[in-house]
Amino acid sequence: MERTLIKDLKDYKGQEVTIAGWVDVRRDQGKMVFMDMRDMSGKVQCVVLPSHAEALEQVKEVRTEWVLSLKGVVNERPEKNIKAGVQNGDIELEITDIEVLSKAHELPFELGTEVNLDTYLDYLPFTLRSERAKDIFTVQSTILDSYRNSLRKQGFTEFMAPELAGGDAEGGAAVFKVDYYEDKTAFLATSPQFYKQIMVGAFEKVLTFTKAFRAEKSATTRHLSEATQMDFEMGFIQDEREPMKVLEDTVRDTVKAVGEKHRDIFARFNTTIPEIPEKIPVFTLAEAQALVAKEYGRTIEDTNDMSPEDERQLCEYVKKNLHSDFVFITRFPTVKRAFYTYEDPSEAPFSRGFDLLFRGLEINSGAQRVHNYDDLVRRIKERGMDPEKFSYYLQAFKYGMPPHGGSSTGLERFTARMLELANVKEATAFPRDMNRIDSRLSQ
Amino acid sequence: MERTLIKDLKDYKGQEVTIAGWVDVRRDQGKMVFMDMRDMSGKVQCVVLPSHAEALEQVKEVRTEWVLSLKGVVNERPEKNIKAGVQNGDIELEITDIEVLSKAHELPFELGTEVNLDTYLDYLPFTLRSERAKDIFTVQSTILDSYRNSLRKQGFTEFMAPELAGGDAEGGAAVFKVDYYEDKTAFLATSPQFYKQIMVGAFEKVLTFTKAFRAEKSATTRHLSEATQMDFEMGFIQDEREPMKVLEDTVRDTVKAVGEKHRDIFARFNTTIPEIPEKIPVFTLAEAQALVAKEYGRTIEDTNDMSPEDERQLCEYVKKNLHSDFVFITRFPTVKRAFYTYEDPSEAPFSRGFDLLFRGLEINSGAQRVHNYDDLVRRIKERGMDPEKFSYYLQAFKYGMPPHGGSSTGLERFTARMLELANVKEATAFPRDMNRIDSRLSQ
Repeated sequence: MERTLIKDLKDYKGQEVTIAGWVDVRRDQGKMVFMDMRDMSGKVQCVVLPSHAEALEQVKEVRTEWVLSLKGVVNERPEKNIKAGVQNGDIELEITDIEVLSKAHELPFELGTEVNLDTYLDYLPFTLRSERAKDIFTVQSTILDSYRNSLRKQGFTEFMAPELAGGDAEGGAAVFKVDYYEDKTAFLATSPQFYKQIMVGAFEKVLTFTKAFRAEKSATTRHLSEATQMDFEMGFIQDEREPMKVLEDTVRDTVKAVGEKHRDIFARFNTTIPEIPEKIPVFTLAEAQALVAKEYGRTIEDTNDMSPEDERQLCEYVKKNLHSDFVFITRFPTVKRAFYTYEDPSEAPFSRGFDLLFRGLEINSGAQRVHNYDDLVRRIKERGMDPEKFSYYLQAFKYGMPPHGGSSTGLERFTARMLELANVKEATAFPRDMNRIDSRLSQ
Repeated sequence: MERTLIKDLKDYKGQEVTIAGWVDVRRDQGKMVFMDMRDMSGKVQCVVLPSHAEALEQVKEVRTEWVLSLKGVVNERPEKNIKAGVQNGDIELEITDIEVLSKAHELPFELGTEVNLDTYLDYLPFTLRSERAKDIFTVQSTILDSYRNSLRKQGFTEFMAPELAGGDAEGGAAVFKVDYYEDKTAFLATSPQFYKQIMVGAFEKVLTFTKAFRAEKSATTRHLSEATQMDFEMGFIQDEREPMKVLEDTVRDTVKAVGEKHRDIFARFNTTIPEIPEKIPVFTLAEAQALVAKEYGRTIEDTNDMSPEDERQLCEYVKKNLHSDFVFITRFPTVKRAFYTYEDPSEAPFSRGFDLLFRGLEINSGAQRVHNYDDLVRRIKERGMDPEKFSYYLQAFKYGMPPHGGSSTGLERFTARMLELANVKEATAFPRDMNRIDSRLSQ
């Protein structure tokens, strides 16, 4: 008999069906046994009555997380037992036949128990089944889809950026080394930056979702050793406002899709669908810092960059006064940005870079880039690096590159702020950091 | 003045427009200069006439691959100059103003020149701009989109599989080592297999597109050190025929989308849109080998697996007689498949694994998997491996896993066979192999 998904049971009142899934909760009342069954589509209460002796005998052995295929009849519940607002709250499945597909060992703790993050991660193959984890990765799946589709709609071509790099080209960022063939050393990419710029030479507008690896010895709530970057890059721009506009439209489309599809999840996480006004507010770094200094009576320590506190306070101010969960920062000093960030002589010493903050955290960084070969070579030299090491990348510029720019959004940070998770690791299905790759690393 | 894309020029006959792009070809006739300009949307012929003295002066200096912004008037060509069947063959842009956005150095060779593969790869930032390369990656972008959307339509949830692994768990395949923190060693994932199985426990049906890294010392036309895998996995199946059906539907949707969108590209590559009959033919390994042995009068050397020649000949036969560019092979000996491949006692010693061949090449491998904890532990031991090293993965099975299966398609192989490219490297934007990461590695 074909399997019916639990969410569809309401259409089968009075009929015999087969469902399959996990035992979510089990209550043995002696004469009868109740089970809440769970599948990808939801939950339903099942009951095994004394009239089905064989099934009752079988169900005595069953435990939580066993995987069962159950045949039964969809009964309407008597008025007094109806649970309003609960999925399948008005029905109950009266079980006639039980097939055990898989048994489970004793559980380390009940699914959905609030445990500390390390325990949660130690048992991910189990804890990922909790409603909370499923909610997070359901939202993340929608973000992936909506962000990509918005960029495609805007004319971007998708490509796969490579993740093995030949050199530690950008310098600065801590980079993982790979033992390559015959004692050669390769590196894990810290971003798809060079490759998406090269692809602008072919397609003008490109998008790539890729992994970025950073060997930073940092165990904060915002760092990951392996993160997913959602990147785009576009040619023939006037200045950084064009990639900012594309980013704004993409983020708006994404928030809209997540909001429409997952209203229930926002409610369960006790948060709201993010607000985006008609235009995301834009502050220069100087304006942003002057504002938080004044509003919060603070002294700014580093006027060259936003501190985490600056970011939180600016976001708080903007949310309250401008009704936006997003805010752009522009005009960072050129020296504080990557070497390929464009600086217009009339705007020196500030660059055409920008950051996008979302609910207190930077989730995106972007810029207009240097497109002139000679300027780029000079920049590399100014930073004390060797242009020879960039010769592959520099080809794109040697053979004619248009003014261009783009940006990169961290998927896990975006997801974490969307649901106001305290730690970006919770927004990563299988997080890697200094102390963990799946299991904790021994010291 | 706002930029007009070259493909839209036909709508601006008699009007003044601004275009921007690369100089594709330049013909200096002394009194006037012709240029074919190229942007993301196509090409158009431009002419600078003596009546525009300043522009003519400027264009004398211009060379191929310079990036220009051009103002001009869209003129209809006189009847005798119309080129039928060519984009913008009936118009010409008469240039009035030239702005140089970027100059180019002397080119290594003309764009689109047929060069050997190593030279092509040495100059990728340049050669990716050729029509041939753009065609390949345009098709690849459509494959990515269609394959993913088909799976989403079939109810699959997307997640990001990790690529840093804690151990060389599967054994066998050559694995790259990574210097992790504090002298610890990590590894690059050779597949997302374990993670997608774990995710079945949460979502039942999952999809992930991820990089797989293989340190095989192999320089064939079908191997890459870094490849893109398009994976799915699904729970609550009866046997391997269900993932085969999902794969078949996904491939069909993808071929349909590529065929509809890129008929012109198939023509340029002198190939045809792949044929898929109502049902992709299925042969057991024994049937397939018996068939090629008979049809081609050959002796089969290894009856445990298909050789490249077996694959080519079977595909040739199937194409000719069954009008399919795709064919499934099933019932490989269990010992020849990964340890987690399901074997039903009634079918021993054959497994429930399958391969999908496309135009002579295996592009996908899949199976029903072992879902019982004890069976899986026994399998690991039988292969001489230590279950302790799999304890994280094994949790999923300890806590109840349904019968499940899935498959993995190599994006680059799929792309290469779609356009009948001789080498899978051509279907990889930035291929990595034993001898190359962008630049050739010094010996």
